[in-house]
Amino acid sequence: MKVLVGSPGTVSSLLLRLGQSLFAAASIGVMISSSGFSTYTAFCYLIASMGLQVLWSMGLACLDVYALRVKRDLQNPVSVSLFVVGDCVTATLSLAAACSSAGVTVLFARDVHLCSTEADLSCNRYKISVSCAFVTWALIAQSSTVMLWLLASM
Amino acid sequence: MKVLVGSPGTVSSLLLRLGQSLFAAASIGVMISSSGFSTYTAFCYLIASMGLQVLWSMGLACLDVYALRVKRDLQNPVSVSLFVVGDCVTATLSLAAACSSAGVTVLFARDVHLCSTEADLSCNRYKISVSCAFVTWALIAQSSTVMLWLLASM
Repeated sequence: MKVLVGSPGTVSSLLLRLGQSLFAAASIGVMISSSGFSTYTAFCYLIASMGLQVLWSMGLACLDVYALRVKRDLQNPVSVSLFVVGDCVTATLSLAAACSSAGVTVLFARDVHLCSTEADLSCNRYKISVSCAFVTWALIAQSSTVMLWLLASM
Repeated sequence: MKVLVGSPGTVSSLLLRLGQSLFAAASIGVMISSSGFSTYTAFCYLIASMGLQVLWSMGLACLDVYALRVKRDLQNPVSVSLFVVGDCVTATLSLAAACSSAGVTVLFARDVHLCSTEADLSCNRYKISVSCAFVTWALIAQSSTVMLWLLASM
């Protein structure tokens, strides 16, 4: 069985999962601390999507810790198929959430210049939250590509 | 060599490429015909991304026609690697463009109710254009998954 960077049950996979959870949680935290985010559907969707990402990545991080402790091999077709589906779904949702929020943030900051005229809009927090969401997506994209590769080469 | 639905040099691949080009061109056409789209960065990005998608998909459709006519096998590692990179990049850009435009459209229609108050906003055209972009993404996602699968199983 091939062992790629991010293969399930390895230290690299655990680090990837912890990174995904950390950046997704940071994205949620920064967005929730901004004022008026709940008015905008895209920002609420970002929080929901990043929440799902935290749950999924933390679950798989726990599974990686278990596999590393008991030296269990997680690379069987059934497990990897499940990881592929979960990773591809959460990766797509994360990118969709990051991009829709980025679209709204760019609209506020550059197109209608609301950030400079409306003092109660936390534009900088929106930008930080969206950046964290993009980092989360980059990490989950790495995981899902590795999982698909492993499944195809089984 | 495996032959999956969407494998390069097959009729299913040609149909997928033509579908991608058609929906991407429709997305561009509807967006360009709407009023005031150029004010918004997300809509301009949608046009650029769908334009790139048309070029890429039409190019590969021509290659499929050539392969079908001369019975040429396109499933070698070098060609498939190139298709994987192009498909993954254009799929990511298409989803990003569709989602950022969807975020802005939902903002106009549901969050700030601009569609009902501003008569010069072509909200219905924005929605149709974004829907076409999502269909384009679904088709290119199918192509890129098949290409990655083929490359991994070579």
